[in-house]
Amino acid sequence: MARPERIAVLGAGSWGTTFAKVLADAGSDVVLWARRAEVAEAINESRCNAGYLPGVRLPESLRATDDAAAAVHDADVVVLAVPSQTLRENLAGWQPLLPADATLVSLAKGVELSTLKRMSEVIGEVADVPMEQVAVVSGPNLAKEIAAEQPTATVVACADHDRAIALQHACFTPYFRPYTNTDLIGIEIAGACKNVIALACGMAVGLGFGHNTMSSLITRGLAETTRLGVALGADQMTFAGLAGLGDLVATCMSPLSRNRTFGERLGRGETLAQAQEAAHGQVSEGVKSCSSIRQLAARHGVEMPITDVVHRVCHEGLQPGPAAAELLGRERKPE
Amino acid sequence: MARPERIAVLGAGSWGTTFAKVLADAGSDVVLWARRAEVAEAINESRCNAGYLPGVRLPESLRATDDAAAAVHDADVVVLAVPSQTLRENLAGWQPLLPADATLVSLAKGVELSTLKRMSEVIGEVADVPMEQVAVVSGPNLAKEIAAEQPTATVVACADHDRAIALQHACFTPYFRPYTNTDLIGIEIAGACKNVIALACGMAVGLGFGHNTMSSLITRGLAETTRLGVALGADQMTFAGLAGLGDLVATCMSPLSRNRTFGERLGRGETLAQAQEAAHGQVSEGVKSCSSIRQLAARHGVEMPITDVVHRVCHEGLQPGPAAAELLGRERKPE
Repeated sequence: MARPERIAVLGAGSWGTTFAKVLADAGSDVVLWARRAEVAEAINESRCNAGYLPGVRLPESLRATDDAAAAVHDADVVVLAVPSQTLRENLAGWQPLLPADATLVSLAKGVELSTLKRMSEVIGEVADVPMEQVAVVSGPNLAKEIAAEQPTATVVACADHDRAIALQHACFTPYFRPYTNTDLIGIEIAGACKNVIALACGMAVGLGFGHNTMSSLITRGLAETTRLGVALGADQMTFAGLAGLGDLVATCMSPLSRNRTFGERLGRGETLAQAQEAAHGQVSEGVKSCSSIRQLAARHGVEMPITDVVHRVCHEGLQPGPAAAELLGRERKPE
Repeated sequence: MARPERIAVLGAGSWGTTFAKVLADAGSDVVLWARRAEVAEAINESRCNAGYLPGVRLPESLRATDDAAAAVHDADVVVLAVPSQTLRENLAGWQPLLPADATLVSLAKGVELSTLKRMSEVIGEVADVPMEQVAVVSGPNLAKEIAAEQPTATVVACADHDRAIALQHACFTPYFRPYTNTDLIGIEIAGACKNVIALACGMAVGLGFGHNTMSSLITRGLAETTRLGVALGADQMTFAGLAGLGDLVATCMSPLSRNRTFGERLGRGETLAQAQEAAHGQVSEGVKSCSSIRQLAARHGVEMPITDVVHRVCHEGLQPGPAAAELLGRERKPE
C-alpha cells in the first residue's frame, strides 16, 4: 500500500494537534478538525493552538477547519483524536462522511464503559468497516515533548501490515520514529491500563512514597496488564515494548501527565470532586477506565489488584492510605 | 530450612548498612563488619553511619565490628556487601573464616572485568562452595528510601529454594517485602545491566532529552538485557519482575542514583575524569560493567546497541551527542 496522500485528524486537543504536526512535518497533506471555529481560525492565522500547545509553532502546511465533512473529504487516513468515552458518539456523527477505504486510526486510550469494548472495536462497529482498516498509534508519547521535537519512538499497529507500513511512512520524522506491529489487542489494553497504573503511582507520590514504591507499582501494574492482555488474546511481548512498558514508564515518570497528577491530588487527601475541579472540571481517563477494565478482568477471571484498589478509591470511598497498606501488605510468597 | 540464627553483613557502605538494618528490624541477630574501626565504633556508640546514611538511626540490636573473623563466627548467613570488582579479593581474604554451611549472599551488581563472571560465580569459585549455597538479593532498592522505611519489595534468589525461604524470613519487615526466586542468572544479569542503562538515561537527561526518550531507553535497554540473559540461560520472566524492570526503573528515575548522576555529567559534556572527580574519585559501577557486559554479549552473539554506545562514550572517546543520534537514527522496521 502506498504512502497516504491526504490525512484528516479529527480532534484538536494536545495529542491530536501534536500528531497533526508530526504528520505535516513528515510531508503528509494534513487537515486538522477542531470543534470550535475560533480554534481552527487561530491555527490557520497564528499557527498556534494556544489552549493546548502554548508556545508551539505549527507547520505552515497544516490546515485547520471546524467542518468535519471538508476535513475527511477524499482522505486516505482519518485519525480519531477524541476522548475514549466520547468516541462512539463522535464517530456516529462522522460515519456518513468517511471515504469507504480510509484507514481509521485511534489515538484514544480506554475501554468503553457500557460495552467493555476497546477503541478499535468501537471504531469497527460504528464505522462498519473490517478490522483490517483500523489502526492504533501508541507509545511513550507525552504530547508536549513531541511538540517540542524531542526524539520519540512509537508503535503503529494494524492487523493489515501494509496499512501499518503506509501509516509509518506518513508519520516518520527525524524526531518521531514509528515501529510497526499487528497486535491491536495488546497495544490497546496496554494503553488503557497505563492510565490506571499512573493514577496509582500518583496516589503513591501524593502519600509521600518514593521511587522504590513507584517502581514496584509499575512492575506489578505491567504484570497485571499483561495478564489481562494475554487472557484477551494479546501477544505477551507487546507489553514489554514501547506501547507497553515504554508508555507506562513515561506516563508514570512525568509530573505533567494528567493521570499521575490526578492521582497525586487523591493521594494528598483531596476528594474526587476537588481533584476534578483542579483539572478544569475533567476527571482523568484512568478514573473511568479503572471501572471498565476491572469489569473486563472479572469477566475473564483475571486478578488485577492495583486496578481494583484504584477503582475502590475513585468510586467506592476507599482512602488512599488504607489502599496502599492493602497493596503492600500481601503475603510472603514466590514472585 | 529454619530461619537463620546469626547473620554477618560484610561491608558498611550505604546498601550494606541499610540491609543490616532491615535484617535487625526483622528480628535477626546481625553483626555488621566495617573496614574502618572508627566507623564500627560510631555505629556501636551513636547508632549512626554518618558517612553513608546520615540522619538514619540504626537499631539497638545491630552490632558493628572491624574484625571480620568475629563477624562471621558461627554465622548461618554471610552477606557480601562490597563493590563487584573488589569482591574476589575481599572474599579470598575471608574464605578461611567462613562457616562451612553458611549461605553466602551477594548484594553486588556487576560482571567481573577479567573473567566475565557473575558475582555468584565468583563467590562459588572463591569460597569453594556449591552454587546451592549462594544467594542474591536484588530489586527496586534505593538504599536511602529503605533506610527511611519507605515500603519496598525485593527478590531473594537462590537455586536452593529452602535457603531462599529462610533468607526471606530473615529480612521480612513491614516496610521490606522479599519475594523468592530461583533464577540467579536472570537476577544478576538484570542487576549488572541496569547500571549501564541508567548511565545511558543519565546521558540523555544531561543532553536535555525528556521522559519519552528516557522511557524508550528503558524499554530498549530492558530488551537487550533480556536478550543477553536468555542467551545465558535465564528465565525471560525474571526481566519483567522486580529485580528486572523494577530495579531498572527505580535506578533510572531517581535523580539520586549514582549511575544516572554520573551519566548526566557525561551528557552535559564533562570528561570521565571530571565526572569521576565529582563522584569523590570513583567511577560508577556501570562504567566498568559496560565493558564486561559488552564482551559477554559478543561472546554469545547478542546485539546490545545501548551498552555498546555507553562503552564507547566511557572508554573510546565517543561524544554523547553523536551517540544519541546513532541510537535514535536506526532504520524504520517492525518493533
